[in-house]
Amino acid sequence: MTYSRTACQALDAADPLAALREQFDLPAGIIYLDGNSLGARPKAALTRAQHVITQEWGKDLIKSWNTAGWADLTKRLGDKLAPLVGALPGEIVVTDTTSVNLFKALAAALALQADAPARKVIVTERHNFPSDIYMAEGLAGWLERGHTVRLIDTPDEIPAAIGLDTAVLMLTHVNYRTGYQHDMAALTALAHQHGAVTVWDLAHSAGAVPMDLHGAQADFAVGCTYKYLNGGPGAPAFIWVPQRHQGTFHQPLSGWWGHASPFSMASAFAPCDGIGRALCGTQPIVALSLVECGLDVFAQTDMAALRAKSLALTDLFIALVEERCAGHPVELVTPRAHARRGSQVSFTHPHGYAVMQALIERGVIGDYREPHIMRFGFTPLYTSFTDVWDAVDILRQVLDEQAYDVHAARSAVT
Amino acid sequence: MTYSRTACQALDAADPLAALREQFDLPAGIIYLDGNSLGARPKAALTRAQHVITQEWGKDLIKSWNTAGWADLTKRLGDKLAPLVGALPGEIVVTDTTSVNLFKALAAALALQADAPARKVIVTERHNFPSDIYMAEGLAGWLERGHTVRLIDTPDEIPAAIGLDTAVLMLTHVNYRTGYQHDMAALTALAHQHGAVTVWDLAHSAGAVPMDLHGAQADFAVGCTYKYLNGGPGAPAFIWVPQRHQGTFHQPLSGWWGHASPFSMASAFAPCDGIGRALCGTQPIVALSLVECGLDVFAQTDMAALRAKSLALTDLFIALVEERCAGHPVELVTPRAHARRGSQVSFTHPHGYAVMQALIERGVIGDYREPHIMRFGFTPLYTSFTDVWDAVDILRQVLDEQAYDVHAARSAVT
Repeated sequence: MTYSRTACQALDAADPLAALREQFDLPAGIIYLDGNSLGARPKAALTRAQHVITQEWGKDLIKSWNTAGWADLTKRLGDKLAPLVGALPGEIVVTDTTSVNLFKALAAALALQADAPARKVIVTERHNFPSDIYMAEGLAGWLERGHTVRLIDTPDEIPAAIGLDTAVLMLTHVNYRTGYQHDMAALTALAHQHGAVTVWDLAHSAGAVPMDLHGAQADFAVGCTYKYLNGGPGAPAFIWVPQRHQGTFHQPLSGWWGHASPFSMASAFAPCDGIGRALCGTQPIVALSLVECGLDVFAQTDMAALRAKSLALTDLFIALVEERCAGHPVELVTPRAHARRGSQVSFTHPHGYAVMQALIERGVIGDYREPHIMRFGFTPLYTSFTDVWDAVDILRQVLDEQAYDVHAARSAVT
Repeated sequence: MTYSRTACQALDAADPLAALREQFDLPAGIIYLDGNSLGARPKAALTRAQHVITQEWGKDLIKSWNTAGWADLTKRLGDKLAPLVGALPGEIVVTDTTSVNLFKALAAALALQADAPARKVIVTERHNFPSDIYMAEGLAGWLERGHTVRLIDTPDEIPAAIGLDTAVLMLTHVNYRTGYQHDMAALTALAHQHGAVTVWDLAHSAGAVPMDLHGAQADFAVGCTYKYLNGGPGAPAFIWVPQRHQGTFHQPLSGWWGHASPFSMASAFAPCDGIGRALCGTQPIVALSLVECGLDVFAQTDMAALRAKSLALTDLFIALVEERCAGHPVELVTPRAHARRGSQVSFTHPHGYAVMQALIERGVIGDYREPHIMRFGFTPLYTSFTDVWDAVDILRQVLDEQAYDVHAARSAVT
């Protein structure tokens, strides 16, 4: 293939998803390749927020718990999200944070192992998103029953790490730094073969890659709505509990929204049937409402179409960087194999942080993760092939001109 | 005193806080006495949301973690809230839900008792807000170390319920049903005398009554921003950890926002210094931002002035109901003593649910709690003395005319 900006424009012209970009408010002059950190704003989010604030909160006030559906919003959003991840209606709630939901899921997974007291180990990756490891350590330490977290260094160590001592295999489906995608079905089968329960973090895969939680026979999953799902900064996260585990689902954050009859104000906790028992406290309605605006864009397409474009975008980005930035010390850390790739591409560069700052100054927004990793996220809902061309063109200029400050001060949050 | 609508209008004319009502968007034709459930909307919340959504999220995207102060928002809001409850800067974060924060505070309180293994009891009230009891049960049950929750029936049983077996005294400062206000300083002193640690839930008192957490030497506190603080439906809650306990504050929800260096992406958890260690996951920024709009109204007055008006409003309401509804079976359950009263008034009526529905239909918004309790919340920021007169006038009409349907169907959420 010969690459050119004209060829990329032709790809855009032929892209059946191209029109969806119009539903997002993207700033002029910016190529936004950080949707894997914070998804862009659906235009509908503004009018939705205005309605929730002025009418539902301002005018209807407390009545809106019933009349505006606030009371069921966590479940209604979960049902809208379900088809994107291979879940059924009534299996997901959008609530709390990914970390808090992971705590619930891990606790419930350990509860499933209550009859196997020798299973004390939570297996996960050292390069998993750190908060997942911290939550597992927090839970294990606090239980004081000898649970430990076993950290493996590379995915190929997983089979040897799971055994008779393993309670839970806890993995993030797509790695936040490298974009490596685990084989959910194979690893779940492996875990089950050894008597372990699986907990999947879908933060970097929900809305980014197709998946089939039921087909994989996964046990529990949590995920994020503010990355590929475009729900808004820090928007509430989600938790999936399949029907087969709902009857035995128990977790210590047993707040009133998980009660069978919250407004009877009984002093003893009795969990409700169904996914509601994964709820705890009252949710931030304004932020929660905006999650629907992102999901409504997904309802106009499907994950197969999005995946086809995502792979085309990431293939193109990899090929262009390797061709046009040849001679510079950029190294691909994201898998080339489609089956092992999420919807981001990461390259290392010895001055990765400084190069990324220079890119941002020139309007190409990616981000940086230690060590040396420049991350570029590709959101097929709004990223064009021309964006990819232009981003690589600017990267090439920055590298050729050495137009980066190797002493650039780090921001608080990158 | 002789009561009349004209006299109430005179009170409003002399009210130094009357002008603050203009900062709220109150629906026409409604007397809103449910700010103890969902505070009314500050007008500023709309423009703030529009800015956060269009500029901070839409245009500045991921940069806003630094440039718009998203990364420090939980702490900045905590500092604004601190003077309302007698806390110092750096002691409060606005984050998560009241239930989740209570879990953290309770876990930290039990950790403080680690050297006293015989202290296994969490003392609280049977009529505490149920979610608080559920969270304590959830924590105690999962620890599997023999912790139990001891429920007492009335506040005067507290002294006898605290002893050598008591780890924590966990109380809601103002009761959600009755409006009874505990003596925080006296009960904290009592708990400390017996070696117990105190956890206070300020859901119905923050922004409603003056308090001095430091003066009372309280140990931990949590609270709600969507009631008297007018932060928006389900807005994130808060947790207070005094400086003297911050160094030893440990809780199992050890997410990355509580890490000393979250973006170093270390695989081992190391808590940060200070109140940040009460944080866990990424917070819903749009909802969190609106909390500031409510707090900014409080910054224009002080809790002493608000308390003076609150007591005048609740005194007036009690006197008017007892005078003008005499002969009907309404009974006051809120304490008459000022020191024991929050900023709400509750009356029982045998058909309390039906009467409340009739009031709502006629534009007086209070709410109902089992059994038989009609709750009326008074928010001195926007409730007028004439509102009180008119509300009682409509209550009198409803009762005199028996204009309520004793078979009224219950809503999902009331």
